[in-house]
Amino acid sequence: MMAHIPLNSHPDPKKVLIIGGGDGGVLREVVKHPFVQTVDQCEIDEKVIEVSKKYLPHMACGFDSPKVNLHIGDGFDFMKKHKGEYDVIITDSSDPVGPASSLFQKSYYELMKAALKPDGILCCQGECLWLHLNLIKEMLTFCKTVFPVSDYAFTTIPTYPSGQIGFILCSSNPDTNFKEPVTTWGTKELKILKLKYYNSDVHRAAFTLPQFAREAMAHFCLQNIAPAFTHPKE
Amino acid sequence: MMAHIPLNSHPDPKKVLIIGGGDGGVLREVVKHPFVQTVDQCEIDEKVIEVSKKYLPHMACGFDSPKVNLHIGDGFDFMKKHKGEYDVIITDSSDPVGPASSLFQKSYYELMKAALKPDGILCCQGECLWLHLNLIKEMLTFCKTVFPVSDYAFTTIPTYPSGQIGFILCSSNPDTNFKEPVTTWGTKELKILKLKYYNSDVHRAAFTLPQFAREAMAHFCLQNIAPAFTHPKE
Repeated sequence: MMAHIPLNSHPDPKKVLIIGGGDGGVLREVVKHPFVQTVDQCEIDEKVIEVSKKYLPHMACGFDSPKVNLHIGDGFDFMKKHKGEYDVIITDSSDPVGPASSLFQKSYYELMKAALKPDGILCCQGECLWLHLNLIKEMLTFCKTVFPVSDYAFTTIPTYPSGQIGFILCSSNPDTNFKEPVTTWGTKELKILKLKYYNSDVHRAAFTLPQFAREAMAHFCLQNIAPAFTHPKE
Repeated sequence: MMAHIPLNSHPDPKKVLIIGGGDGGVLREVVKHPFVQTVDQCEIDEKVIEVSKKYLPHMACGFDSPKVNLHIGDGFDFMKKHKGEYDVIITDSSDPVGPASSLFQKSYYELMKAALKPDGILCCQGECLWLHLNLIKEMLTFCKTVFPVSDYAFTTIPTYPSGQIGFILCSSNPDTNFKEPVTTWGTKELKILKLKYYNSDVHRAAFTLPQFAREAMAHFCLQNIAPAFTHPKE
């Protein structure tokens, strides 16, 4: 979901940057996307990749793809040297405590914007509606000042706290509508791409928020509002 | 969700039966529905209600509604004495181990069908896609032989195993389409009804299953299939 929502929201995602994501799970999904030609991945901790290759080979298999250039280092430094290069940037980080907290701040989003092409898209770990609603609101507030389009989606992951994780999505292209994928796949293509969770309807549904979250984010994510109450027999 | 999905899938849910649900959470939601006139609730264990009233008063507040007739006893026996009475039956049970296992079997669904009016609807605890996919498939297999329409939806609940719970939905009315609510509420009505999670879009999205589940249930729940793969530039 973290890979296919942004990739299928971009009409032609040729060049992708992944920050973090050392387990390889996001990379595995990005390299299988048929439009993606090159992936730079910048992971600060080489050990994560080593351990994932050893113990989670089904996650780490993407590192073998010829599309991938792996860089061990700091994502901030890497992006400063790669301005205007990427169609899509995905940040797969840990939670906003300790070293990863800087990845949840406005300055990081400004840096990503500069590393994107003029119509580029980003997707970042966006925490959980149940636990981090205030943080998500804060992030969408500053995203609105940096990008013409920003949105929030979530997916279910049973092993994560509260069983779900969210994504902050931003686009430099004012015409982007994250809720409606520009690329859709039928059953046959989903099978060829070995997609077990993602499909086009799950993409659309990921933006449908429970009422408490919709109300909290009403100013940031434009959602369709249901029509007024009527008895169907009236 | 367990209350409003079935209630808003029925054009005029006047009379409702709840089996189990002793904590009162489902009842609280059912009694606030403006079309509901009478609710019978049949809970086998009076102690659950007592404890909920004492320690979970925000859940148990529905027991005070004048719409409610509370019955302490066995749901099987109760339904045998109330044939053809209900617009909607909701079974809020524990998991299918020990005493509640009979509530996940065909004979129970046949009993519910007999207690429903000819165009009645039911909603039962349907376990979790991540943990009980085979059980869900088995249940939908026998539901198909009992009802003209059956479907599966799920919602996120952070305190439940894997962070979600599902619902088996069946209708005796062949025209029922659970995926599209017949009653929809706007922001104002959602506020008046104090709905914190449910809205019409969440109702629709609850039927959107991850690809692994959609494939597993393809024969039971008709889902829209995405069109074939095309590059948007072609």
